[in-house]
Amino acid sequence: MRQLVIVGSLAYDDIETPRGSSGRMLGGAAAYSALAASYFDLSVNVISIVGGDFRKEFFDLFTNQNVDISGVEVHPDEKTFFWAGKYYEDMNRRQTLITDLNVLEKFDPEAPEAYREPEILLLANLSPLVQYKVIKQMKRRPKLIVLDTMDFWIMTMLEELMQVLKEIDVLTINDQEAYMLSGKHTIRAAAEEILGMGPKYLIIKKGEHGALLFSKEKIFFAPALPLLEIFDPTGAGDTFAGGLCGYMATTGDYSFENLKNGVIAGSVFASFTVERFGTERLVSLRQEEIIQRIDDFIELVKFDFPKSQHIFNKNKEL
Amino acid sequence: MRQLVIVGSLAYDDIETPRGSSGRMLGGAAAYSALAASYFDLSVNVISIVGGDFRKEFFDLFTNQNVDISGVEVHPDEKTFFWAGKYYEDMNRRQTLITDLNVLEKFDPEAPEAYREPEILLLANLSPLVQYKVIKQMKRRPKLIVLDTMDFWIMTMLEELMQVLKEIDVLTINDQEAYMLSGKHTIRAAAEEILGMGPKYLIIKKGEHGALLFSKEKIFFAPALPLLEIFDPTGAGDTFAGGLCGYMATTGDYSFENLKNGVIAGSVFASFTVERFGTERLVSLRQEEIIQRIDDFIELVKFDFPKSQHIFNKNKEL
Repeated sequence: MRQLVIVGSLAYDDIETPRGSSGRMLGGAAAYSALAASYFDLSVNVISIVGGDFRKEFFDLFTNQNVDISGVEVHPDEKTFFWAGKYYEDMNRRQTLITDLNVLEKFDPEAPEAYREPEILLLANLSPLVQYKVIKQMKRRPKLIVLDTMDFWIMTMLEELMQVLKEIDVLTINDQEAYMLSGKHTIRAAAEEILGMGPKYLIIKKGEHGALLFSKEKIFFAPALPLLEIFDPTGAGDTFAGGLCGYMATTGDYSFENLKNGVIAGSVFASFTVERFGTERLVSLRQEEIIQRIDDFIELVKFDFPKSQHIFNKNKEL
Repeated sequence: MRQLVIVGSLAYDDIETPRGSSGRMLGGAAAYSALAASYFDLSVNVISIVGGDFRKEFFDLFTNQNVDISGVEVHPDEKTFFWAGKYYEDMNRRQTLITDLNVLEKFDPEAPEAYREPEILLLANLSPLVQYKVIKQMKRRPKLIVLDTMDFWIMTMLEELMQVLKEIDVLTINDQEAYMLSGKHTIRAAAEEILGMGPKYLIIKKGEHGALLFSKEKIFFAPALPLLEIFDPTGAGDTFAGGLCGYMATTGDYSFENLKNGVIAGSVFASFTVERFGTERLVSLRQEEIIQRIDDFIELVKFDFPKSQHIFNKNKEL
């Protein structure tokens, strides 16, 4: 069975949306990514750090979902990373209310021996220094290294980020971050610039507007499923990365053509995450639901343009 | 040959973008729509109004492009509608600098006899009272009535707009207008609400994020082509409507399946318009370029997700 190693945060989140408040619940990039990837036929392994307040039921939850958490360090005298945020009716805007890094501040991961030859390495949003260090701990180059980052690191550790970008295969960021990182003003100019920084592939996430996959030669546009209600967008990007890596590791085909399917798989899982608070939807999916939703995505963009050229005005041949 | 009648403004535009200034040039919804539709094998007819300052070369331009302008009233002692606007690096924002309605203020169209039985009637952005009046001048119900509107009419003439929405088949608006018109907060909830107001189909235009086509039962997501540079977005929506109606009139198939192709055709023409100032690109397209770009759209969203279910985790059958 192929192995996926995910390095990222585990957290308590407290989220307020126009639909209600979540209270303290399981969060963190690694939680969303690992739970999404766990639906695929592969071994999912998490490297992370938590405090003594991280509840046993969460450890059990991961274990029950076939996620290996032997790479999660527990610091009993510390507290787990905590994030509180608020969404408004326009779910594209969010406000951070509290960020208590707590134990995450001293996260200096040492990959367990059994985690040093994965098929895929997913570096969720973390300091680029930590991301770089983990790459260098690998015994052999993973088939695919996927990296997520955010505006904070672009603004505060650009040099370190540029260094890690040279080591990876796939960068996933959102459109605002792509503009910030590239200094360009169209998505395509931004993509050209960023692909020049090292990654072979770039995925620009646009939330409800879908996602774009770029290589130097090709572009693929993946839709987002228009949902009747977006309940809580937290973790959508991390879920996307987990679904993408899960799909890629299972199929073992790293061509652009198959990456398209990976982007669809990521989008499918992300579309479930936003339907409920936190990981609620993600821990209870049935295989039929997933397959049905893949079909929904296929249907959503399918069209069959007639090849006939008789539709054009013959007088207009210039 | 099937007939398309377009009712809408002709204008002088003066546009400033980060790439430069256009100077006074041909503009107006009817100009963009008619020029896009003129590439299809049909008869394109414009109902509009201009002042004595509307240059002969523009009349000639339409005639040369096979657009019938016998429905354009000329008021020699008045001035043509004038609009000046400015775009910033983020082309999604624009600022209106000058709006001189001039002769457009007294636009009270009387459709010529020869225009009263068209296959398709396109009511470009105008007062809903004018749009309603033109519908009532038709001798028999067109096969398809397409209507465009904007935030200004939603805010100032909602009742009149609601009345005209009961008479039409396809409404095209942008996402912000859809939220405003429906009072809903997701694109899908907005679509459900608006389809309850009368139109059989709704197209929500999202600029660089593509467009969504809704019926009561189905959704289609059309991408936008990621362009390296967006030169001037003015007229993209009007071009879209013209390309859509041109395609639909030529094929004569008003099913949801064929409307998808119409949305792609509209998107294809809009992608050309934004590459240059005003109608510059739209008056000089070669058929090969159009066909190549249709292929680009087909390629952009094409993927082939494997039907095998062996990718899923067998331990996870709940």
